Amino acid sequence: MPQPDHISRLGVPHPDGLDDDLRAIWRKCQDKLGFVPNVYSAYSLKPQRLRNFMAMYNEVMLSDSGLSKLEREMVAVVVSSANRCYYCLVAHGAAVRMLSGDPELGEMMALNYRVAKLDPRQRAMLDFAWKMTATPWAIEDADRDALRAVRLTESDIFDLAETVAFLNLSYRMASATDMMPNREYHGAAR
Amino acid sequence: MPQPDHISRLGVPHPDGLDDDLRAIWRKCQDKLGFVPNVYSAYSLKPQRLRNFMAMYNEVMLSDSGLSKLEREMVAVVVSSANRCYYCLVAHGAAVRMLSGDPELGEMMALNYRVAKLDPRQRAMLDFAWKMTATPWAIEDADRDALRAVRLTESDIFDLAETVAFLNLSYRMASATDMMPNREYHGAAR
Amino acid sequence: MPQPDHISRLGVPHPDGLDDDLRAIWRKCQDKLGFVPNVYSAYSLKPQRLRNFMAMYNEVMLSDSGLSKLEREMVAVVVSSANRCYYCLVAHGAAVRMLSGDPELGEMMALNYRVAKLDPRQRAMLDFAWKMTATPWAIEDADRDALRAVRLTESDIFDLAETVAFLNLSYRMASATDMMPNREYHGAAR
Amino acid sequence: MPQPDHISRLGVPHPDGLDDDLRAIWRKCQDKLGFVPNVYSAYSLKPQRLRNFMAMYNEVMLSDSGLSKLEREMVAVVVSSANRCYYCLVAHGAAVRMLSGDPELGEMMALNYRVAKLDPRQRAMLDFAWKMTATPWAIEDADRDALRAVRLTESDIFDLAETVAFLNLSYRMASATDMMPNREYHGAAR
Amino acid sequence: MPQPDHISRLGVPHPDGLDDDLRAIWRKCQDKLGFVPNVYSAYSLKPQRLRNFMAMYNEVMLSDSGLSKLEREMVAVVVSSANRCYYCLVAHGAAVRMLSGDPELGEMMALNYRVAKLDPRQRAMLDFAWKMTATPWAIEDADRDALRAVRLTESDIFDLAETVAFLNLSYRMASATDMMPNREYHGAAR
Amino acid sequence: MPQPDHISRLGVPHPDGLDDDLRAIWRKCQDKLGFVPNVYSAYSLKPQRLRNFMAMYNEVMLSDSGLSKLEREMVAVVVSSANRCYYCLVAHGAAVRMLSGDPELGEMMALNYRVAKLDPRQRAMLDFAWKMTATPWAIEDADRDALRAVRLTESDIFDLAETVAFLNLSYRMASATDMMPNREYHGAAR
Repeated sequence: MPQPDHISRLGVPHPDGLDDDLRAIWRKCQDKLGFVPNVYSAYSLKPQRLRNFMAMYNEVMLSDSGLSKLEREMVAVVVSSANRCYYCLVAHGAAVRMLSGDPELGEMMALNYRVAKLDPRQRAMLDFAWKMTATPWAIEDADRDALRAVRLTESDIFDLAETVAFLNLSYRMASATDMMPNREYHGAAR
Repeated sequence: MPQPDHISRLGVPHPDGLDDDLRAIWRKCQDKLGFVPNVYSAYSLKPQRLRNFMAMYNEVMLSDSGLSKLEREMVAVVVSSANRCYYCLVAHGAAVRMLSGDPELGEMMALNYRVAKLDPRQRAMLDFAWKMTATPWAIEDADRDALRAVRLTESDIFDLAETVAFLNLSYRMASATDMMPNREYHGAAR
Repeated sequence: MPQPDHISRLGVPHPDGLDDDLRAIWRKCQDKLGFVPNVYSAYSLKPQRLRNFMAMYNEVMLSDSGLSKLEREMVAVVVSSANRCYYCLVAHGAAVRMLSGDPELGEMMALNYRVAKLDPRQRAMLDFAWKMTATPWAIEDADRDALRAVRLTESDIFDLAETVAFLNLSYRMASATDMMPNREYHGAAR
Repeated sequence: MPQPDHISRLGVPHPDGLDDDLRAIWRKCQDKLGFVPNVYSAYSLKPQRLRNFMAMYNEVMLSDSGLSKLEREMVAVVVSSANRCYYCLVAHGAAVRMLSGDPELGEMMALNYRVAKLDPRQRAMLDFAWKMTATPWAIEDADRDALRAVRLTESDIFDLAETVAFLNLSYRMASATDMMPNREYHGAAR
Repeated sequence: MPQPDHISRLGVPHPDGLDDDLRAIWRKCQDKLGFVPNVYSAYSLKPQRLRNFMAMYNEVMLSDSGLSKLEREMVAVVVSSANRCYYCLVAHGAAVRMLSGDPELGEMMALNYRVAKLDPRQRAMLDFAWKMTATPWAIEDADRDALRAVRLTESDIFDLAETVAFLNLSYRMASATDMMPNREYHGAAR
Repeated sequence: MPQPDHISRLGVPHPDGLDDDLRAIWRKCQDKLGFVPNVYSAYSLKPQRLRNFMAMYNEVMLSDSGLSKLEREMVAVVVSSANRCYYCLVAHGAAVRMLSGDPELGEMMALNYRVAKLDPRQRAMLDFAWKMTATPWAIEDADRDALRAVRLTESDIFDLAETVAFLNLSYRMASATDMMPNREYHGAAR
């Protein structure tokens, strides 16, 4: 049962034709990860949009924040789970496994986070992420207060909100273009 | 982040107290799989109900049928995915990986089967399984005809229907009791 | 307006060709009820699967349990109502009328159980049955605790859960095969 | 298991205190039906609103129309079924049984109209009624054209639409006030 | 981008052919509003049904009640918002702007009432209106008690319920006939 | 009825404390629009995140593309409508009115785009935008082909997808922080 070998249904330009700054990033990915994430390849159809996407990705997922990188990746997987995004679940699921060293935790986040044994802070963050993804129009003061009650600051709430919002952007790009994840993610940190 | 160590929230009797026939099955599982599936342990609270469950499981998933064992496991994973059953996704996902030798196929079934490259027969089976799980009241002649169009016989349709129905029973038992899958499934056939 | 005269859209074998044990059951049904329930006829396409189904049905609905037979039939009707299964609503609705001697109670269970005047124990059971049918992934400790609060034991919760789970199997078989209920149910115990 | 004996949770004035025209209607109901429909009693809290309701009811359900009275009652039951209104299902279900002389037809309309053997004109009417009840915002030219294709005139479509709309008013009054149907409906025309 | 110029997809009779009482109403509308509301024109296809509709409209929206006219218009907009009825949102939105003198309030009611700064009484009324529109089958004593807690009388609850119910009738007529609002509403009271 | 005067529930820093580049943008907004859009003020809590957001906004909504600016604003309003985002509906609704010179078109996009008279290309774009927002997991080749059928290029599809995805990010930030739109939008281009 051969699986899809496309990266994006909208096609992907040959990397040799990319601008210098992007080719430098391609090389860096190859060196560090062993591959270029397919989301970059798919986005390289529009170089300036790719640059904006990478800038936002780096800030949201990797910059200093009251939320740890693992927490942000857990949020990413739960948001992707709410909308069944194959690309994001595979890529961010691998990140959860790597950052936590706990393969089961990644599975739980992807399949149904409610079964995981989480501390109240993490549970509150993931409940907020689910609601903000599924029924954003119903968020009210009480939802923000539930985050404050487990000691998230206003700054933490901003970062949580933007992580959720960013994933709602990125999984929709993946769904709209039928983006396939790199195979390397599957075996990582099992 | 220590994960749940219970098998079922309703408790599990010690295996030494089980009837002889069940203890024999426990030994066989240990020999063959290296562990007793937690669904059996959870069900052993009620020995006769466990026997009935095992009889149905064996007939539905393992007996001769126009649907291959892999196809039935694919159906099982898709039904479990529709309702985000952690136990079933982990256990049947491992079965898909083992039977297909294709780790990605298991992931696709669990996360969003629509992204997989399937032949029309399998796709029709999985679409029927999803609809029969999510909106059974809306199934009409046209849905059965779509299966006949990809050459399922009446007998095949019966077997497909019972596979879907059985999984709708078993994932609800797992959800209602917060059943946890054996850890051995996670690493299997990656 | 002539109504459907089929039993199942997948066809039904002539009873004379059935194995001896099944023909004995057919005779017993004729003697006791005056008819063979159509679910048996529909399932007789696959004799071993029918045997497993009957064994499970008898254990779940008729064996000793902390839940009375009437309570289990009420659960059956509410589960069927959640998914608008014509066969199950007619058959189990008749059972509620017979066991309770209260025709209105059967109607309320079938049409909207929330309007019935129920004691807290029954209401809690039916709320759990609805949730376990409609959104099983969202069941958590609080839902089981709500049952314990009205004095269901762990054993009762198991039996309640399996009643719900079994009905989720059987109404899906009815929907998938467009199974029609025996006409005798309609007038029974009005 | 004693069932509710209230008529409406908002209370009902004593009939002796009603205006002459309403008392005349009460007497006419007693003579013709043997009882005053509870919806009238519930509405008599506000006499002018009751008069308007009765005027609309009579025009929509009983005046000359390209839709037969039975067809309008079938529509009424299906609309009530979509929203699980106990009062309306019991009252209009009885009307379907009386007008059709077919107890099963009433049950099918109430429980899941898709299982009934209907001619294309009736099926199209009921599909429109369901959609107009459940997702009115999604009705487009194609839905009206489907009615024209089974030879409904513009006048028939207007009458069908107002029947659906009126029932969406009346079952909501019943739900909002927890209105109970008269017991006489249950046994009628079984 | 020329927008629709029809009033109703089912056609509208020429006003000159209407009965005297209706022509008098047409003249009164022209004098008072400068136009005849399209809902009247659309309904004039069936004069008696129009008369019933106007009688109910006047009683529900304009008669004396414990709910102010503005409150009833706010309810009307929120009910229409729940089902995305273009006609009703434009017409009743204009009424909210006129009665409140607050253009933003009309927008909030139409787009998402949860963002408005409302007193508890109004918020409770609108929450009830939303639930009674979206999931009427789930209304229970607790929902009525929430209205009593903010001092709505039984009479007020009746009027609130009928306002919600009436709007559920009228927006469905608008959706079923693709009724277009008069252009005059758009600029009114901005 | 005084309406909310906050900009974001997470607070907003005083503009005088912002970095030079942001203060320059604030001045430019004041000069050109007469106000600083509240989304910028809300985001200024985190200057680098604001810069990334503005870069993406400018590229997605304003750069050269096969989709006109009006078309992108129509998409923005429809995406916001699907999730009832007050901020986005007010801000992008004003943009549709300004770019189209058609106040009704803005209303239709915000309230129910299906009632507008659109050419097939625009209708296909908005149907895709709705589906990609509401059920992204169900997008398949057929959905992309429907866009190609009305002559969108692969590049146009990419831009459409990113417009939808970006709005799914931005309205979630607005919902999560209860962001209020500037009052200037309400009266603009009526």
